[in-house]
Amino acid sequence: MSSNRGVVYIKPGVVEVQSIDFPKLALGNRKCEHGVILQIVSTNICGSDQHMVRGRTTAPAGLVLGHEITGLVLETGRDVEFIKKGDLVSVPFNIACGRCRNCKAGQTGICLNVNPARPGAAYGYVDMGGWVGGQAEYVMVPYADFNLLKFPDKDQGMAKIRDLTLLSDIFPTGYHGAVTAGVGPGSIVYVAGAGPVGLACAASCHLLGAAVVIVGDMIPERLQQAKSFGCETVDLRSDTPLPDQIAAIIGTPEVDAAVDCVGFEARGHGSHSHSEQPATVLNAAMQITRAGGAIGIPGLYVTEDPGAKEDAAKHGNLSLRLGLGWAKSLSFATGQCPVMKYHRQLMNAILYDKIKIAKAVNVEVITLDDAPRGYSDFDKGAAKKFVLDPGGLIKN
Amino acid sequence: MSSNRGVVYIKPGVVEVQSIDFPKLALGNRKCEHGVILQIVSTNICGSDQHMVRGRTTAPAGLVLGHEITGLVLETGRDVEFIKKGDLVSVPFNIACGRCRNCKAGQTGICLNVNPARPGAAYGYVDMGGWVGGQAEYVMVPYADFNLLKFPDKDQGMAKIRDLTLLSDIFPTGYHGAVTAGVGPGSIVYVAGAGPVGLACAASCHLLGAAVVIVGDMIPERLQQAKSFGCETVDLRSDTPLPDQIAAIIGTPEVDAAVDCVGFEARGHGSHSHSEQPATVLNAAMQITRAGGAIGIPGLYVTEDPGAKEDAAKHGNLSLRLGLGWAKSLSFATGQCPVMKYHRQLMNAILYDKIKIAKAVNVEVITLDDAPRGYSDFDKGAAKKFVLDPGGLIKN
Amino acid sequence: MSSNRGVVYIKPGVVEVQSIDFPKLALGNRKCEHGVILQIVSTNICGSDQHMVRGRTTAPAGLVLGHEITGLVLETGRDVEFIKKGDLVSVPFNIACGRCRNCKAGQTGICLNVNPARPGAAYGYVDMGGWVGGQAEYVMVPYADFNLLKFPDKDQGMAKIRDLTLLSDIFPTGYHGAVTAGVGPGSIVYVAGAGPVGLACAASCHLLGAAVVIVGDMIPERLQQAKSFGCETVDLRSDTPLPDQIAAIIGTPEVDAAVDCVGFEARGHGSHSHSEQPATVLNAAMQITRAGGAIGIPGLYVTEDPGAKEDAAKHGNLSLRLGLGWAKSLSFATGQCPVMKYHRQLMNAILYDKIKIAKAVNVEVITLDDAPRGYSDFDKGAAKKFVLDPGGLIKN
Amino acid sequence: MSSNRGVVYIKPGVVEVQSIDFPKLALGNRKCEHGVILQIVSTNICGSDQHMVRGRTTAPAGLVLGHEITGLVLETGRDVEFIKKGDLVSVPFNIACGRCRNCKAGQTGICLNVNPARPGAAYGYVDMGGWVGGQAEYVMVPYADFNLLKFPDKDQGMAKIRDLTLLSDIFPTGYHGAVTAGVGPGSIVYVAGAGPVGLACAASCHLLGAAVVIVGDMIPERLQQAKSFGCETVDLRSDTPLPDQIAAIIGTPEVDAAVDCVGFEARGHGSHSHSEQPATVLNAAMQITRAGGAIGIPGLYVTEDPGAKEDAAKHGNLSLRLGLGWAKSLSFATGQCPVMKYHRQLMNAILYDKIKIAKAVNVEVITLDDAPRGYSDFDKGAAKKFVLDPGGLIKN
Repeated sequence: MSSNRGVVYIKPGVVEVQSIDFPKLALGNRKCEHGVILQIVSTNICGSDQHMVRGRTTAPAGLVLGHEITGLVLETGRDVEFIKKGDLVSVPFNIACGRCRNCKAGQTGICLNVNPARPGAAYGYVDMGGWVGGQAEYVMVPYADFNLLKFPDKDQGMAKIRDLTLLSDIFPTGYHGAVTAGVGPGSIVYVAGAGPVGLACAASCHLLGAAVVIVGDMIPERLQQAKSFGCETVDLRSDTPLPDQIAAIIGTPEVDAAVDCVGFEARGHGSHSHSEQPATVLNAAMQITRAGGAIGIPGLYVTEDPGAKEDAAKHGNLSLRLGLGWAKSLSFATGQCPVMKYHRQLMNAILYDKIKIAKAVNVEVITLDDAPRGYSDFDKGAAKKFVLDPGGLIKN
Repeated sequence: MSSNRGVVYIKPGVVEVQSIDFPKLALGNRKCEHGVILQIVSTNICGSDQHMVRGRTTAPAGLVLGHEITGLVLETGRDVEFIKKGDLVSVPFNIACGRCRNCKAGQTGICLNVNPARPGAAYGYVDMGGWVGGQAEYVMVPYADFNLLKFPDKDQGMAKIRDLTLLSDIFPTGYHGAVTAGVGPGSIVYVAGAGPVGLACAASCHLLGAAVVIVGDMIPERLQQAKSFGCETVDLRSDTPLPDQIAAIIGTPEVDAAVDCVGFEARGHGSHSHSEQPATVLNAAMQITRAGGAIGIPGLYVTEDPGAKEDAAKHGNLSLRLGLGWAKSLSFATGQCPVMKYHRQLMNAILYDKIKIAKAVNVEVITLDDAPRGYSDFDKGAAKKFVLDPGGLIKN
Repeated sequence: MSSNRGVVYIKPGVVEVQSIDFPKLALGNRKCEHGVILQIVSTNICGSDQHMVRGRTTAPAGLVLGHEITGLVLETGRDVEFIKKGDLVSVPFNIACGRCRNCKAGQTGICLNVNPARPGAAYGYVDMGGWVGGQAEYVMVPYADFNLLKFPDKDQGMAKIRDLTLLSDIFPTGYHGAVTAGVGPGSIVYVAGAGPVGLACAASCHLLGAAVVIVGDMIPERLQQAKSFGCETVDLRSDTPLPDQIAAIIGTPEVDAAVDCVGFEARGHGSHSHSEQPATVLNAAMQITRAGGAIGIPGLYVTEDPGAKEDAAKHGNLSLRLGLGWAKSLSFATGQCPVMKYHRQLMNAILYDKIKIAKAVNVEVITLDDAPRGYSDFDKGAAKKFVLDPGGLIKN
Repeated sequence: MSSNRGVVYIKPGVVEVQSIDFPKLALGNRKCEHGVILQIVSTNICGSDQHMVRGRTTAPAGLVLGHEITGLVLETGRDVEFIKKGDLVSVPFNIACGRCRNCKAGQTGICLNVNPARPGAAYGYVDMGGWVGGQAEYVMVPYADFNLLKFPDKDQGMAKIRDLTLLSDIFPTGYHGAVTAGVGPGSIVYVAGAGPVGLACAASCHLLGAAVVIVGDMIPERLQQAKSFGCETVDLRSDTPLPDQIAAIIGTPEVDAAVDCVGFEARGHGSHSHSEQPATVLNAAMQITRAGGAIGIPGLYVTEDPGAKEDAAKHGNLSLRLGLGWAKSLSFATGQCPVMKYHRQLMNAILYDKIKIAKAVNVEVITLDDAPRGYSDFDKGAAKKFVLDPGGLIKN
């Protein structure tokens, strides 16, 4: 039980499954008696992992990846009071102390006590506090009483693990994008990006009662996946302007709300312009959101992007058409999703069959050893969400 | 075109279809150049009409009933600028001027300018400003530019008229109950009452993303109707205490939110206690709502109820277990639904097939002449929503 | 250091200062390594203590009173990470674990883990979880990292201790009443009750920007105290109806918002009717709040009141004029104030001299031994807030 | 009575008082029987007028300026029902129909029916619908029942006219900036810009209960004006970085909320960099707002700025450091203030002496003929708000 294996970042384009340390209730010299050791049941590959693996960050070689974790409690620290050995739990990707002013206000994405460098932390991520990632057999989760969501019934939980595994990040993240864009019953929404977060956002819009959900992307398979659960789609490789494409669907060129599920690696729209244009998605969102609307931005924008083409973008600067946004009285919400704000309610939606989120994002369960293929296929645009099964615990 | 016929209240238990005046752009001496004359396409019998017809109010003989109106614009007053002759429109049951502080704040249920007696008015209702009702062939709607919701496409509107007719009252009213009870994705909700408002509320809870909707009533057919679209049910004639019935469904005796869709004519729960107990529903709601929850109260409570059994109830006083509510930090929202706040979004939900509200409340279209039977059947507890078709315009 | 003295409830009307146990990091068999021992700097007598001392509850003889505590950290449990020995801290009266769903949602007044009997707990209070009270020299505070608010500068904190001591309960409680009643800039508010909570509420209304704050009470000294910081007042012993008294001040008989700072021991208004009428305040609030307004209810209503005159009231039932409330579309918010939601911001308001809350509620600092006199004077209606100084640390 | 004089834009840098048409109840061919003719009591010069007069817009010669209007009702259109001849009224600068979906939702700044070119209109402003301005003796106000705020007492209104005149724009605009930045009791706020909107925002922050309000500008007289009513200040000509200047005041380099009251004509900070840098204020705001905070942007950003130095800025594009904003989970609110949402409450705050807004922004009343001097002095940075008195009705 004291061995461990995990997915390790080696260099741009390369990840490997290696033997790694078995977790301790500590982070460096910092004791974590409030933590637990989990045996990982499922752990997902995330689009934001790709930023590191593509070499777009300063992630060091040897970093153990993975922040989308669901597991069984194997051992509890002495300060853990309510989480028990054997519990099946979902781990929010944002690590939070539960004791700082931000956590107390529900802003667990910007906890002040878990990352010396800045507010907010995550497992297995560059600049996010140094916590060991969870694309592995075992992982340590600090502040377990606060962070973990226990599933009410373990058998039921295992039966729905393909859906529940998405509670650690992309389901709440997509949902947060929709909520911060003001989506509700009857809304007409544009979701930029049909990767897993975009698809989770689209499915969340439906859960929130949206009347029409239009998803835009450049990869036909992903658009097809969006169609499979009732979304309308626009192909961003087309030279037909986006407003016209939207008008062809709903009769007017503007939607009530837009969600940017792409982030800083955005590419130009149209048949000739596939180079990176980091402001494309946001400027398009301003153009096609009606006056008074809101734009949710769960897609990641970074403070430093050494791999960017333009100097401004290297420091996270974008050329935004704010004048247009202002004239339309738009509002903008950014930042990491505070998963804890939503995961219990979304768990209920899964457990009572209100949503088929695994189907919406096209979950494919693979072995831990197959992780490198998962990274590679995902990077090529597979319309899938890869879920690793490090313990072989997930039944077909 | 200058003739008109409508449903008239005669005496307790008796309504008749009679010739009535063709509407004018006026209310008594008050000119209504801001109004329109509608040819009525559909007009529904409401549970709150029953309070009058049962003789539980001071409604005078001769009152033309009806406040759930959808119609075609036949004539527009000179001050009407945006609504046009021929438009197919939904009429919110609450009449609102669009110019007072309450209307400006979206509180159209308590408009200050349309009822000299108190804030708020309605068509065809006692103490609600004297406006003529719309269970008729024609009706006048004041402040038309403000009040009316135009359907974007007339043919589409007529094709979905069974659903759209519910936008004038019970769909928004049920929805308002859910919203004010804090219902959202993943909520577990108890809806008291499976009459049309209760069923509309239950369907609205689903639209809002609720995980479980439990509906309580004493009439088996109504409970069956609730089951038909995915609700759980509890039979209030049972002697099993309500918390136990709820626990049998969800594993715990408390829900996140409760909605009172019954109002002041509530009856005692259990097999032996069918007498009126006006506080029953609210006290039960406090019992089965978890600490920190909210209770929405779209069900009507009145300031004067001459037909009540107890003296306190005659003046709208209820013996409420507020001590319990306080200990649980509950909040309570009362009052008429401000229809305008919701009808556009709910229209979208209908037009884009997000909800089958007519099916949920079991709409039955009948002729104007058949209205007396509709009132009678509804009073006996039919699990139906009766929609009158005064012009024979609704296709089968 | 291992001795301790505290205020103990003996029997109706009698409290005594006695030797009590020095606190341990435990509650019975329950270990509290997450707790701290405080040397108490200030600890206030609260109106809700009076309910017990008057014999209106089932509080047992020997109960150590006190839930409004500010102190210096003397010892920290081994699991306390961020609070340090020597910190000067404010203790919210509601004990909260910081780990249950309610705490995570900011609803610390209904924590699920600190009271086996029901959601919510407090120090030194009947039915509130058995935690030892803090009208004493020392007290134990569990879940210290979560519960405590550390003042940024100890000297500044001691200099403003008369104001800061009110952060543990009545300042946030009065403020919560105002917030839940919808008070904001320009509001016209009625505050029922000019005891310390009522006065704190009135001062909070000013902080929130209210244009007019009208305070009602039956004790001239308390009304005078309200006038001293800019409130309008109404004398509830007068036979002039309350709406008329309000109209005499603002020109209309209705206010935007009302706050009930009295609770279940309310008395009838007017010169002849001083008997207890527990629904008086709430029914008056419904009468004088304008349609669409809200009523905040920080005043305590209890589930069981063995001392009540009427049978209904013994079980927390009140005869409320809900029919009137419904006709006016009022909403109602009840329950314990979740102190943590507000205390940091209110601390800032004190530290930067935006409010003189000690002056508003007329703080009088007395010794621990003087507590029985404080209870007695307060019970007689003194327009004062008594603050005990158990360690003689407060300078004149 | 049929003559009229008004302030007319001639060319960059030049305005003149000329004879202009007496207003009609019409806009071109569009009849406005819902309108009123006002005799103007007070009408203010606004910073946004300066954009036109400086030649930074496509405003045509001959445009009658002025959108901050207070007046007496001289004549009412036949469809005006509640506003009466002789009423003293405040005119929101945003013209709104009260009948479109945006107006019904309270978003009067983006009314859909008053400007064929885009949502939203104003008096006397380029691209804002062609409505005649009100720096004049008389003006026409359409949709008068909806738009106008009547002061309850005319004498009282005239006595406080210096304050009440600010309700038409800058007081609500500054307040809106504070509200959308999340300012409330205890907040620590940075307000960029000490022009009239910035000062009104700072005073609004105080009204909202802010603990500390820090105002930044480059003009010493304006900073002095901010100090005069209790603000802290930072001099943006200093080479000390803004975070350090803020830390010198509050002990930390970050505030809770920031408001941009500058807009697109922003200049670089520091002693050497006074050239226009339109993104300076927003990028600084992101830097000094703490994680989780919000930024209100009442300062005007435009879709087209022919006078901009950089090409991007000519089309309203700004180089924003969104990566930083995202990392800090900031949110951003833009657009015209919907005055109607706030003016009644702010009127109460003035009438009941909760705020001295005229003193805060340093109102100076001048004659209509003196308007050119007012424009010139204001453009030079006078720490004053110029209010024109076209009828000589304002007493000293």
